[in-house]
Parts: sequence; structure tokens; C-alpha cells
Amino acid sequence: MATRLTESGAYARLWRTPALADIFEEPRRLQSWLDILVALAAAQAEVGLIPGRAAEQIARHARADQLDVELVAAETRRTGHSTLGLIRALQTRLPEPASEYVYYGATVQDLTDTWFGLVMRDVGALVRADLRRAHATLLRLAATHRDTVMAGRTHGQPGAPITFGFKVATWADELGRHLARLAEGSARWSVGQLAGAVGVLGFFEPDGIALRRLFCERLKLADPGLSWTSTRDRVAEFGSVLSLVAGTLARIGNEVYELQRPEIGELSEAPSQHTVGSITMPHKRNPELSEHLDTLARLARANAGILAEGMVSGHERDGRAWKAEWAALPDVALAAGTAASLAADLVDGLVVHPDRMRANLGPRWASERVLAELSRRHGKHRAQQLLQDALSANPDGDLAEALKEHDLDEKWTREPAVATAGAMVDAIVARGTPE
Amino acid sequence: MATRLTESGAYARLWRTPALADIFEEPRRLQSWLDILVALAAAQAEVGLIPGRAAEQIARHARADQLDVELVAAETRRTGHSTLGLIRALQTRLPEPASEYVYYGATVQDLTDTWFGLVMRDVGALVRADLRRAHATLLRLAATHRDTVMAGRTHGQPGAPITFGFKVATWADELGRHLARLAEGSARWSVGQLAGAVGVLGFFEPDGIALRRLFCERLKLADPGLSWTSTRDRVAEFGSVLSLVAGTLARIGNEVYELQRPEIGELSEAPSQHTVGSITMPHKRNPELSEHLDTLARLARANAGILAEGMVSGHERDGRAWKAEWAALPDVALAAGTAASLAADLVDGLVVHPDRMRANLGPRWASERVLAELSRRHGKHRAQQLLQDALSANPDGDLAEALKEHDLDEKWTREPAVATAGAMVDAIVARGTPE
Amino acid sequence: MATRLTESGAYARLWRTPALADIFEEPRRLQSWLDILVALAAAQAEVGLIPGRAAEQIARHARADQLDVELVAAETRRTGHSTLGLIRALQTRLPEPASEYVYYGATVQDLTDTWFGLVMRDVGALVRADLRRAHATLLRLAATHRDTVMAGRTHGQPGAPITFGFKVATWADELGRHLARLAEGSARWSVGQLAGAVGVLGFFEPDGIALRRLFCERLKLADPGLSWTSTRDRVAEFGSVLSLVAGTLARIGNEVYELQRPEIGELSEAPSQHTVGSITMPHKRNPELSEHLDTLARLARANAGILAEGMVSGHERDGRAWKAEWAALPDVALAAGTAASLAADLVDGLVVHPDRMRANLGPRWASERVLAELSRRHGKHRAQQLLQDALSANPDGDLAEALKEHDLDEKWTREPAVATAGAMVDAIVARGTPE
Amino acid sequence: MATRLTESGAYARLWRTPALADIFEEPRRLQSWLDILVALAAAQAEVGLIPGRAAEQIARHARADQLDVELVAAETRRTGHSTLGLIRALQTRLPEPASEYVYYGATVQDLTDTWFGLVMRDVGALVRADLRRAHATLLRLAATHRDTVMAGRTHGQPGAPITFGFKVATWADELGRHLARLAEGSARWSVGQLAGAVGVLGFFEPDGIALRRLFCERLKLADPGLSWTSTRDRVAEFGSVLSLVAGTLARIGNEVYELQRPEIGELSEAPSQHTVGSITMPHKRNPELSEHLDTLARLARANAGILAEGMVSGHERDGRAWKAEWAALPDVALAAGTAASLAADLVDGLVVHPDRMRANLGPRWASERVLAELSRRHGKHRAQQLLQDALSANPDGDLAEALKEHDLDEKWTREPAVATAGAMVDAIVARGTPE
Repeated sequence: MATRLTESGAYARLWRTPALADIFEEPRRLQSWLDILVALAAAQAEVGLIPGRAAEQIARHARADQLDVELVAAETRRTGHSTLGLIRALQTRLPEPASEYVYYGATVQDLTDTWFGLVMRDVGALVRADLRRAHATLLRLAATHRDTVMAGRTHGQPGAPITFGFKVATWADELGRHLARLAEGSARWSVGQLAGAVGVLGFFEPDGIALRRLFCERLKLADPGLSWTSTRDRVAEFGSVLSLVAGTLARIGNEVYELQRPEIGELSEAPSQHTVGSITMPHKRNPELSEHLDTLARLARANAGILAEGMVSGHERDGRAWKAEWAALPDVALAAGTAASLAADLVDGLVVHPDRMRANLGPRWASERVLAELSRRHGKHRAQQLLQDALSANPDGDLAEALKEHDLDEKWTREPAVATAGAMVDAIVARGTPE
Repeated sequence: MATRLTESGAYARLWRTPALADIFEEPRRLQSWLDILVALAAAQAEVGLIPGRAAEQIARHARADQLDVELVAAETRRTGHSTLGLIRALQTRLPEPASEYVYYGATVQDLTDTWFGLVMRDVGALVRADLRRAHATLLRLAATHRDTVMAGRTHGQPGAPITFGFKVATWADELGRHLARLAEGSARWSVGQLAGAVGVLGFFEPDGIALRRLFCERLKLADPGLSWTSTRDRVAEFGSVLSLVAGTLARIGNEVYELQRPEIGELSEAPSQHTVGSITMPHKRNPELSEHLDTLARLARANAGILAEGMVSGHERDGRAWKAEWAALPDVALAAGTAASLAADLVDGLVVHPDRMRANLGPRWASERVLAELSRRHGKHRAQQLLQDALSANPDGDLAEALKEHDLDEKWTREPAVATAGAMVDAIVARGTPE
Repeated sequence: MATRLTESGAYARLWRTPALADIFEEPRRLQSWLDILVALAAAQAEVGLIPGRAAEQIARHARADQLDVELVAAETRRTGHSTLGLIRALQTRLPEPASEYVYYGATVQDLTDTWFGLVMRDVGALVRADLRRAHATLLRLAATHRDTVMAGRTHGQPGAPITFGFKVATWADELGRHLARLAEGSARWSVGQLAGAVGVLGFFEPDGIALRRLFCERLKLADPGLSWTSTRDRVAEFGSVLSLVAGTLARIGNEVYELQRPEIGELSEAPSQHTVGSITMPHKRNPELSEHLDTLARLARANAGILAEGMVSGHERDGRAWKAEWAALPDVALAAGTAASLAADLVDGLVVHPDRMRANLGPRWASERVLAELSRRHGKHRAQQLLQDALSANPDGDLAEALKEHDLDEKWTREPAVATAGAMVDAIVARGTPE
Repeated sequence: MATRLTESGAYARLWRTPALADIFEEPRRLQSWLDILVALAAAQAEVGLIPGRAAEQIARHARADQLDVELVAAETRRTGHSTLGLIRALQTRLPEPASEYVYYGATVQDLTDTWFGLVMRDVGALVRADLRRAHATLLRLAATHRDTVMAGRTHGQPGAPITFGFKVATWADELGRHLARLAEGSARWSVGQLAGAVGVLGFFEPDGIALRRLFCERLKLADPGLSWTSTRDRVAEFGSVLSLVAGTLARIGNEVYELQRPEIGELSEAPSQHTVGSITMPHKRNPELSEHLDTLARLARANAGILAEGMVSGHERDGRAWKAEWAALPDVALAAGTAASLAADLVDGLVVHPDRMRANLGPRWASERVLAELSRRHGKHRAQQLLQDALSANPDGDLAEALKEHDLDEKWTREPAVATAGAMVDAIVARGTPE
């Protein structure tokens, strides 16, 4: 029975998606493990290591829904061996000769690393799909709000104007590079593992190389070319790329969180029909999706750190690093995968308030523009001095007024200089969403 | 259904203990939550906020085993509110007037933070108990092996002699300080939370302060004195102390791991009766407990990092930090708590091989002693020169031989200079295990 | 020549204080190292290990300002030994017999760990002093603004009212516990190290224990009782406590950062006389101190993580962990120490805008209070229903109006229910600043 | 004056290389900054924003060796502005009209981010070069030791045989993927920044886009296409890839560290001519390079974590994340860059002891092979039973003897089954070192 709040049926919605559950929930994981054993047996039959009939029987009977899960658990606990419980429970269902030839010459890590390969491939694909969905939405938002003027903020303070389309384009730009990273990484991490006891496939000699190739082919994984029992860069890269993805989504989430403050009021999460916000303060509307993206990014980063630490793996198998991966790889996948799905929903439902954006520009948004124009006419130093003089009399006053009082042209305070923002938006939109 | 390998019935043994499961498994957690609601109602009745009869009814009916857990989950999902599902499921079992007065004026965080207080108190106590058990074992080992000579190793290289008792004493010394840290920290983190919507207990005015005191008393938690909805140093300290504890246990584990290498062979984990090691390499004996301590320390550190990050909490409640705690606090507690239990078992069963320790001293273990004695007679520089000359002829040869060949006294190569080690062991043993 | 921006004379102000520089800058560090050698020689003379005259000479000549720093560096590089350069440079200045007896039987780690002990003691004291300064200021602020009403914010959204004094009290409360942690930790980490080659003081037999005691006494450090060459919990605890301190200061900084947004405008950093903000946007006032506290906390956390990882130290000396401490311990000390000083300045100069606080309460701040009062009269469910009905007609409208329209008493919307906040402030103020 | 041990002239050798110093030391950094200002002015002249003569003057005078560094620092401190000191010191050397047009419309982040682009490009190239050097060496080692039999070790315990060439091939394999990651990442992170006050280049309208293109071209950086003042994935990816690189190098280092233990004795670091190991234990040979690789990886990981955290950047500029990058980006670059150089040296000088490798195989290395062969003949279960029976009589005895005593064929204990290892080595060697 689960010990984590994140596994509770009540809260799981925030920590996984149905598609992720379909990869990680125990029956699904067990079926994946069995599929791997089926592929192994089939490949072994193909090279003549085991009887073809054994492979067929294994293929027919290796079904998680027919497995005695209690027996798996009990035998695992009794033997202290990570896969013996599974094998024994499976053997109770296998006829001869299959029971002699299941899991033949394989090791725990062959099974779990190949499963990691499947997980990394499939979670990577889920995340890519959600990021593509979010990216397409962002391009639409960017185009729609290409010229929606709002305050650019630095250090939390409104400064010169930008457009909301420009802001959204920076999100899309970042997601676009993540799509490239995921594609590049996937070619590295979507691999199988068949290594045997110490990585040199001695058990299978002289068929090891051929066997691994066939095994991987059947699982639609790439052949790693070399055992990777202690070579964990693929796993670490997977964690690292997902944690960077989660970082970007948290950036988007935090931006919404801040701009949804009623004092700012420029963005809102889509109102939910059913959800109940605060019971004690019934009028509040919390940016729940947004803030959760930040939460998930923290988990993703921490777990990616565990995977990176695991690269310093000893000899031909290092249980310290490997077992840490057992905990951290699902965690980073669940965190980033959930974040990708929530983020795609968030941007899809985002409500934009152009009036508040305009209103929040403040009285002095044009100062950079004025400084630029004054600089062209008077030189930079003189321009800085003129502007400073105009502003110092009334530090919080209206800029146009201040300029007029100092006999300076106030025409540059009329329209924001955001043409370049629009051009950058156009370029990002023109690129489209990568495959 | 759980998505994590660490939650699988097959593997849970490595990631929790029965005592920890008794705190964290969902029915136990739900019962704790109900106990908190009972305490709240009782305190509210005591100050006259709710009818005494309601409190009595709540106390009678708030039982997890009578709760419709599916309804809790379904209502939580439907409303998106963290505790509304629980309240509604509870209300279906409560008679009037209790159903009007359960969870009266409380917020989600009052419930979950108070539960955190209970968890920190109880997990802290479990860890303390296991550390005390380990500490007592270590004192016995240190005393037994007070004079068991072995190589001191620096940078992985054997150098001058130490005793195994001395090594063990350094472990006990470190655990002893952790016991102090846990005691000091527990006084800070074993507190309840009753804060209301924004921390100032406005709902309960003018009874808030009295109510909180009574509420905490009933749960045997300290009164925090001040709401801590965004004041997370207690939680961060708990994570931090537990991660340091796990670090020490990993140090012990790694030391056993290294000294159990057959090339060294100075220590072994207790042989297990039932467990099956390697199927493909049946002769191997893996240091499984030892290496797992390192694994658990990595998880504890990563999750403690999340809790430390959560201290930077915004305003009166910050969902980003808080929800990250939901994931990280149980994880750090489970990792460190399991490690403490496994480590106590490990040291209890540790097999020591004094013969191998002596044999591994190597041919030149006495060089520091010889240098010391030569220094007293000839000055430090002359001594260094004499020793270097004696050793350079045959870099891997026997030190006594080399000294004789150079007409230097070899008597200091006969017995290791470990009297001070013994004295330090005596001092640690004399202190005993702290309460 | 330094390679880090943080070491540049131009930027160092943000990354150290004069008091920290006085501990860490190379000449100061060298002098500390020499002071340690002086104490060692004096203690060795006292137990009769070396001539008293040698100790006197060492005391006289061990002065960093007379040392050839270039020679130290060159010899260190040439020999690859961490302290041989220092010893040789020192010996060029030492008369006989001192040059034979300096650094007698000591190892690099004796020197650097004892220096760590001094650093932890002294940086801990600096941080304590700055936190006490900040704490005292916060108590004054809390008392002054005991009844200054402002919006409590959860999830970034204004909710029910609190007082600014209450908010400040939560900061003080957290700092108060840090003062306790620093005091408790200091008793553990302010220790010397005299371990010799492998920790058992074989070189000094039979005088090791007495020698260590005298050595530590002279440096006003505690005797560790046992060598700690691989027992790094003290160092890890130091890092961990400082990183938690930095976390609290970042919380304060981030709160100011957010509340200084002009759209909120409730707090401002003290205006600086001299500093130049944005050149291109001259009207902006950036919360520079505030945001820097968050930056420093990130560095402190990351480096504390390195120190925690270093606890898993191998055998009697582990160069991997130890050299990582060389980098991380100064970094965490500089980050947290600078943060403590800046934070004390920040709160000292904080400008509070009670009018904006009041204005930002929003139209519905009283909903929790109204719900409480309705609940007492009508039961919780009926109250929730009544309030929801009243609010649903006009979700952004004024609460008092809404209540009146629904024939509900609006008197509870007149004054915020913050009496309990005041009582909590009083309790915190009454405690005073801990020693 | 530097405060960090890692910056001390005595120790810097371990924390930087001359090539890295040539990028990061203050005069070099200042010159890079000036080069950026020169490129900006030239590009601005090209689009007609400033007089061509000003750009020429700037190009002529912007030389770090003519800059008053004290003035830079003093003015920076006085104004509290990150680049005003530099600009003012530069202006004192610039004739009219250059002094009006230097740093025209640029912001601090334009300067420092463009410098980051240069640093990431150049450090990336240095690391690539060192990894290519190491990779080529490893291919040679792998080929040479293709058939050098040694124990494969799992969980620290010798198991079935591998070859040293195979082990080395797994190192090369991992480095090969890092070369790909560096190449892919470099295309993303070798970009300039010209964003202006809030990212939309309002100051330069309508020339911003053209200006940025010309500016980047002159610096041989890619045009980012969009301002990235708060879009920090490039920086985070750089840190992340470098930290993974450092992780691999630490794996190599730790492997050497373990195998250099005299009890194992299979590898040694190249003996150094000049360095002095232990003074007190003169016979020891410490794996100093090896262990330092692990140290550097810890620093790289921690600092990469800071950069990943910085992705969650607020609005158009977030000083909290940005200033943390100031500290962490150089640190990760220095750590990983130094590690790459040291690792290339380490593997170049590695001494291999095939005799010790063979001797350490132990008495039962053939058990996996025997199990395989028995399985082919008797089925898997019967084989496991036969082997277990043969071994149980004498758990530490010789396998061949045990087999003979049980009338089992012992021929498979004569030669290790490492043909597949050889084939995998051949494949890796055949690929060669990537560009």
C-alpha cells in the first residue's frame, strides 16, 4: 500500500496523467517487463539458443493480468532478489519447456534497464507531444497578441513597453529548443540493454552481439552497441533534459502566477467549472495550475540531480547508483510529464486582459524611447542629463508633462516602440512548431 | 494504484520499514488526519465554539476504517480541493450536529501541517531509536576491537596503522552528535498548526490563541506560538538533519562496501539465510545493505534540498513550496528512516576479520612511526632524508629490512603505535549512548 | 589572479563583507594558518616534544606579511603538496632550531581542518551578530506595525486581513530559531583538529591526547575528543544551518521584492543616495538588496549540498570529499555571511506604506470573518450557502453591499479581525532577541 | 583580493587550466567585454546609428591593458551599477565623439550575456578538444588491452571476466556521446545578446534586428533570433552538459582510484617526477588526479543545479537568477574544463598491470560460463542446482576442483569467455574519435 501522498488516489491527478499512469502503474510496468522477457525469448529462439516452442509459450503466457502479483511480491521479499519473484510466479504459469528458458541468461539489470529504455522513449514522446501542443497554442497566442502592449518588467518593476505576443514568443522559443533536445536525446536514450552478468555477454557466447540486436529490434529500441550497466549518461541526460523542460514550464507558470495577482490582473487561468477554491475565502481565485508547475519543476530538478550523481558509477555494476535511479527516474518522468500536460492545458485556457496590460504601463514607460530620441539629437550624456532634470522635479509624475515643462518634445510618449517586438514575434511564428 | 517502483509490494522492503509504513500508509495517514479533526473539535468544544455533543460525535465516528476511501478520492478529484473529499465522506457518517461542526474554520494547511508535526515528531523518534540501537552496538564493537590493528587508509591507500575500534568509534561519535541534533530539532519541529485562512486566526476570534493551545495539547504537540504557514524552517531543518543522518549511515555503508571487497576482506555483512544473490554468478556475496545505505542517502539529500528551497515561501501561503513539501517530506522521512533501521541491522551483524586486517597492513605501515622516532633523534629534516634514502633503494620492499640495511634501528617496526587510538576509544565508550 | 566575477574588486561588495574578507582573503588566511602552526609548536614545547626556544622563534617569525607569497605558491605548485610551499617559505625565515620543529608531525588536514574550525566559529559569530541586529530591528518593526492592517495573501492572491506587524513577527520568529541553531551548532563545530597521518596521533605517542588538548586551548577551540578527518558532520551541519539561514533571508528579500512592485507598493527598500539604477529606464527603483538575498541563498544551498555529500567520506581521509569542502565551505560562508549583513541593512531601511496596505485589502477581505459570524448563527453549511449566494451575483463587487442586498448583517465588514495577530506580535516582542 | 582557496596562486592549478585562465582572469574578461563594446559600436556605425569615427576610436582605445582597473572598481562600487565603472574608466581614455557613443543603448545584460555566449562557445571548444584527446587515448588503450582479461566487478565484488579494453571502451563510448552533446548544444548556446532595456530593442528602433545580426556576426556568435534575457535554457543546458561530462570523468577517476588500491593494484596513475606525496607516510602513492576528478564533478553538478534553477526567471529580467549565473556559470566552466584537461592527462599516463588483473580473477570467475554451458546441456534449473551443489561444499574453493569432484566438465574454467568483449571493443575503435 502506497506511503506517498503523491500516490494517493485523491491527489494523484496533480502528480501524474492517465498516459503516464499507463506506463508506470504496477500492472503496466509488470506487463512491460513481461514483454521484454517475451522479446528476449523470441530473439534467443531466433539465434537458436532456446527452442522455438519455448519462446512461443512464453509469448502466450507472459501476461500480467494472469500473474499472481501477491506471489511475485512474496517471493521477491523472501529471496531478496529483484526478479526471482517475477520469474517464479511466471514459471507457475508456464508449461515445459518454457519454464526452463524464460529469463535465460539475463540479469535484473537487463530487464530494468531495457524497461528504462522503453520508459525514456515513451515518456519522451509524451512530453514531446504535450510540448508541441503547448507550442502551437503559444504561436497562436503570440500572433493574436503581437501588438498587445504591456509593461516589460525587470527586477519586478515595470519599465519600457513590450507586447504580450513577444513575451509568449520567448516561451515558444524556449520550448522549440526543448523539442530539439528531446529529439536528439531520444536517439541516445531509446536503447535496450543486454549485458549479462558483467557486461560482456559471456553467457551467450558466441551469439551475444546478434542476440542483442534482435532483442532490441523486437522492442523497437536502438541497439546500444555496448553494454551500459555502469555507463549512465543516457539516463542522466534524460533526467537533465526533462528537468530543463520542467524549468521552462515553471517559468511560464510563475509568470501567470504573478500576472494573475489582482493588483496586476493581466492574465488569468481559465476558470474551472467544478473546482472549489478556498472554503474560508470563497471569493479567491488561485492560480493553481500555474503554481503547481513550479512545484513539479522542483521535484524534477532534485531527481535529475540524483540521476546525474549516478553517473559516477563503479566498475561493471554499481547498486548504489542503480537503485537510486529506480526511485529517481520514475519521479523525474512523472514530474516533468505531468508538468508538460498541465502546461499545455494552462496556456490553452489562458485569459488575457489587454486593458489591464495597457493600464499598468505606468506614467513613465516611455523613458527609454525618449532617452533614445534625445540621444540621437543631443548625444548620450546630454540626453541623460536632460531626462534626469525633467524627471527629478516630480519623481512619480507623468513623463509627458515633465517633458513639456522642460520644453522637450513629448511626442515619443504617445506610442510605444514595439515594432521590433512584432518583427521578432513574426519570425517565431513563421518557424512553426517543430516536428 | 502506485506508479513508483519504491511503492511496489515486491520492493517496498528496501524503501520503508513496518514502523514507517504504520505512519505513512494511506489508511494510517487518513486516521491521523481524522485524529487531528477530533482534537480540533474537542478543543473547540472546550472553548465553547461548537457544541460538546458535536465534538463527541466526531470523536466517535472519525475512523478511517469506516470511511469510504473511494468517495474521498472521487470528491477530492471532483472538487479539486485537498480536503473537501475527506470532509464530505466524513459527513456522510456523521449525525447532526457534528456534520455542521467538523473541520470548523480550519484550512487544508492546518490539517496537513499539523500532520507534518506529528510525522516529524514520530519519525524523529523512530530514527532516534534506531540510531541509539546502532550506537550501542558500535560502542560494543569499538570496545571489542579496541586493539584490533588494521591499516589506516588515506586516499584509498593503506598508510599507518589504526585499530578497528578507533574506526568504529568515529562512527559512534558522529551518531552521538546526530542524537543531539534530533533532540534539539524535535523541540522545534514537533508542533501543531492552527492558522486559519491567512495565519491570524480571524475565524476564531477572540479564542484563537486559547484554541490553538488546547488543540496542540490534545495531540501532544507543542504550541508553535505563531502561525507557520510560510515559515518553513522547521520542515527544512527536519529534512536537513535527516539527510545528515543518512549521510553518516552511508559513510558506514560505503566503508563496509569497500572493506568487504574480497581483495581486502576485512569486513563482511552478516550472511543472509534466505536471500539469493547473483543467479548468474552464484558464488558472489554482495554488500547489499551497505550499498543501499548510500542509495538512501542520495534520496534523502535530494529531498532535503527541496525542503530547504521551500523556505523561500511567499506571503502567507505559497502553494509552490507547500506542495513540494507534500512530496519531499515523506520521501526524506522514508529514506532516512529506512536507512536508520537497516544500518542498525548492518552493524549488528557485521563480521570482522582481524587476520585480514593485520595482513593488509603492508610492508611499510611503520614509516610514520619510524619517521617520528628518527625525528626525535636527528631532527625532522635529517630524519626525512634518512628514511627516504632507506626506502628509495627498494620502493616496495620491507621497511624493517630497509632500515637494517641502512644501519637504522628497526625496533619501531615491530609494534604499531596505536595506544592513542585505544585511549580515544575508551573515551567514546565511557560516554555511553545518549538518551 | 582571480577568475571569478564574484572575486572582482568591482563586484566583491555583493559577495562578501569587510568582516568576511578579513577572514578569507589570502593574507588573512595565511596568517591564520601560521597562527595554527604557532599554537601547535607552543603546545609541543609544553609537552616537551620540541625545544621551547623553537616554539618561541616560530611564534616570533610566523607572520604572513613577512612571508614570500610568491615562493609559497611556486613551491606548492612545484611539489604538488598543499602545505610544503608554506613550510619552505616559512623555513627561509626561521632560525635554527625552529626550522626543524615547525609543522612537526602535522599533516595538511590538521592545518586546514583547524582553520575550518576557526572559520566556522568566526563566521558563525558574524552571522549571529547580523541576525541579532536584524532580529532587533524586526521586533521594533513588528511593534510599530502591530495594528497596521494589510492583506494576507495566499497563492499570490489577497485574502483576509493580517497586520504587517504579524508578517514581520514571522520573520523574527524564524530568525530566533536560527540563533538557537547557530548556538547549538557552534558548540559542535568550533573544534580543532590534530589527527596526524591516519587519525590516531601515532607520531606523537604517547603525548597525542594531551597535545591536542593544549593545541586547541591555545586557539580557543574545543577539543574534538576524536579525530574527524573523515567525520564531516560538523562541516555539513555548518553548511546546512547557514543555508537555512540564507533561506529565511531570501524569504524576507522576496517578500520585499514582491511588495515593492509599484502595482502593490506596500514596501520599499531604503532609497540609496549614490547608486545608479537603470541607465536606460532612469525612473525605475529596483529592489536590489532584496533580490540579491535570493541569489545568495541559491549559492548557499548548492554549496551546503556539496558539504552534505562530503559526509560520505571514505576510510581515514578522502581527498574527494575534502577538496570539495575547500571550495564549498568558503562559498557557503561568504554567501550566507553576506546575506546576513545585507538583510540586516535591508530591514533597517525598510519603508512601509500603510495607506497602500489598506487600499490593497480589496473589496472582499472580510469574507472569512463574515463566514465565521454567519457560521456561529446559522451553522457552517448554511453560512457557506448564504455567503455564496450573496457573492455570486457580482463576483467582483463590494462585500458589504452584497450582504446588504441579501439582508445580511454587514457590520463584520467594518473592522478587520486582527486582534489575534496583535496578540501573537506581542508574544514575539516580549521574548526579545536571544543572546 | 581573492577570498577563495580555489583562487589562491598556490592551489589554482587544481581548479583551472592556463587555457581557462586565459578566458576568465579579470584582464582577459575585461578585454572580452571591451571587444563586445567594439563590436557593438562597429555594428551601430554600420547601420548609421553612430558616427563611423566614434566606432573607430572605440576600436582603437578599448584595451584592457590601458584601462584604470582601480577606477573601474571604484566607480562600480560608488554607483552600484554593474558596468558604469567600466564605461566611465573607458570614457577617460576615449576622445570625442567616441565617449558619447560607447555602450550606446546597451544594457548590462547585453554585455554580460554576450560574454556568456563567448564563454560558452570557447569553454565548450576547450572541453571538446580535451575530450577528443582523451577519447583518442582511450581508443588506443582499448585496442591495446582488447584481450587483457580482468575481473568484471559488480557491487564491488569480482564476478565473471571482462577485458580491460572493454572497460575502457565504455569510457570512450560515453565520451563520444558527450562530444555529440557539446556539438549540438554549442549551436544553441554560442549566441550573442542584444536586447536593450526590456528585450524589444526599443532604443534602436527601427534598426534593432539588423543591428543584432551585425553585432553577432562580428563576434562570430549566432544571432539568437529573440532576446533571451529571461530565457535561460541555453545557459542551463551548458551547465547541464558540462556537469554530465564531469560525471563521466569522475567515473573514470573513481575507477582508477579503486583499482589503484594496492590490495587490487590493477591500475596506477603515472608517477610524477616532482610531486611530494605524503610527508609522514613517504611510501604512499596517492591517486591524486583521479580523486580530484570526483571533486570537480561535485562542484560542476552543484553549480549546474544553480543554472537549472535559474531557468525559472521572472518577467523580462530577473536579477535573482541572473546574478546567480554570474557565480555559477564560471564555476561550472572552470570545474568541468579543468576536469577535462586533467582526465586527458590521467588516461594518457595510465599504467596498466595485466598480471594483477589476471591474478585478481579469483577462484570462481568461470561460474557464469559454466552455468551457461551446463544450462545448454541440462536446462537452466538443473544447471543451477548442479552448480550450487558443486560449490556449496567449499564456498571459497577452486571452481575447477569443485566441478571435477562432482564429475562435471571443468574445461570451461580454462579460458574466459571474452570474445564478445573483444568484438564490442573493435566496434568502438572502428568508429574513431568524432570531430
